Amino acid sequence: MGKLYLIGLGIYPTYLTLQGVEALKSCDFVFLEDYTSPTPSWCLEYIKNVSGKNVVKVSRKDLEDNEGRIIFEKLEKGCKVALLVPGDPAIATTHNVLRIEACRRGHEVTVIHGVSILSSVISLVGLSPYRFGPAVTITYPRMNVYSLRPYEVVKDNLERNLHTLLLLDVSDDGKFMTISEALKILRALEEKIRGKIFTEDRVIIGIARVGFPDTKVHVDTLTGLENYDFGEPPHVMIIPAKLHFIEYEVLVHVHKCSDKLLRELLMK
Amino acid sequence: MGKLYLIGLGIYPTYLTLQGVEALKSCDFVFLEDYTSPTPSWCLEYIKNVSGKNVVKVSRKDLEDNEGRIIFEKLEKGCKVALLVPGDPAIATTHNVLRIEACRRGHEVTVIHGVSILSSVISLVGLSPYRFGPAVTITYPRMNVYSLRPYEVVKDNLERNLHTLLLLDVSDDGKFMTISEALKILRALEEKIRGKIFTEDRVIIGIARVGFPDTKVHVDTLTGLENYDFGEPPHVMIIPAKLHFIEYEVLVHVHKCSDKLLRELLMK
Repeated sequence: MGKLYLIGLGIYPTYLTLQGVEALKSCDFVFLEDYTSPTPSWCLEYIKNVSGKNVVKVSRKDLEDNEGRIIFEKLEKGCKVALLVPGDPAIATTHNVLRIEACRRGHEVTVIHGVSILSSVISLVGLSPYRFGPAVTITYPRMNVYSLRPYEVVKDNLERNLHTLLLLDVSDDGKFMTISEALKILRALEEKIRGKIFTEDRVIIGIARVGFPDTKVHVDTLTGLENYDFGEPPHVMIIPAKLHFIEYEVLVHVHKCSDKLLRELLMK
Repeated sequence: MGKLYLIGLGIYPTYLTLQGVEALKSCDFVFLEDYTSPTPSWCLEYIKNVSGKNVVKVSRKDLEDNEGRIIFEKLEKGCKVALLVPGDPAIATTHNVLRIEACRRGHEVTVIHGVSILSSVISLVGLSPYRFGPAVTITYPRMNVYSLRPYEVVKDNLERNLHTLLLLDVSDDGKFMTISEALKILRALEEKIRGKIFTEDRVIIGIARVGFPDTKVHVDTLTGLENYDFGEPPHVMIIPAKLHFIEYEVLVHVHKCSDKLLRELLMK
């Protein structure tokens, strides 16, 4: 029987953990998937430098359509295999399916957690983790059909005075959605549903490249945000509910957001 | 002006990131708070080994009552100061207040994210991150008064078919709440409110020591869970809503949970 390590790469290659490095060193084969989140071009070289292992990239097709055959072939031979995954390695369904199958076949599976966008963006921005409703992904229209899910989730969260983390889709050909593209989709959803959720004056927090050296946090209205340059993906957004005072203070003093814009979001 | 690094220690000392180690090496002073989550006794020694820096523990009093004077004294002298914090370093209000104050005084502040319990427990257990409502902390009664908040949040989440992450309190004298203590509090809340949320047959996922070598995941009814030994804290719990098929599969095949118990939680 083989041993599978699912290792979180975190939000940026330097966010690899010491425990992750130790596990990599013990492995016979190291694979990396970087189709769920973009990694810098020097990522493979960096991992090789810190772990001494050659890293082979795997595609979505390798893991999903071919059911991880590339990994199971090594496991069946009794090898120790690492799969490096951006963020936390067992958050996404794909990697959980792999984990279930490996356990079913009797292999030992160890998850080494990584820094996830789900927690780090909350901490970066400085909003209270207790005040987030469910997160949702804004997806590209498929065959011209828009998923209404982001609209429903944000509406429900706002009605309960909860913030919403909006994750952005990856297209089938590997393009990571930008805030600018996402805002167009939100506008289209508003036009369709007209529930006054994604109006021109809706305050939105745009966040680019969490954990990267050029992280950006910028708050503005939907209209204002369209003219802001966030640079390259990965991008995410937060739709804030009413703000507690500490949340307001972090946005104003740490992120230099407009006091005037945020003041009306302050909780009474 | 000084430079403040807020560095996430993650869920266990070996979860320190490579970026965290690099930042520590560049600092003049390194402080560690370990009152928000328990760390193993060898933690200070370990950090010294990997970073070459002496680490000084700070108490809750140092950071809250004395408004971080121990840190600001060094910053005012233009030093580079690191504060190591379990999990992600800017999730808790205490550390955000420190960050705001440091920015206000003109110091440079860098947050180096860490693996947080908020994301890692979701990934460990294998539930979908999109299906979690707000998290809530079960608190010790203060002056014999129980906070009803956990009851309200879980009730609201279950009505929306959302899972709830329950974090457990730290007492004023530094005691970390166990699952067994938490269950007693949930029983007391049910007795008070009688809304049929924390009934004897409520299915609960108990999780101990996420990221530690002796992590435990055990699912049972409220009554059943009382007789299970989770070992030392830190402990957390999840109240699952209906399960998707993949969620069910992870619990059964990866965590060896009772198929019979979970089957009735399967989403129709």
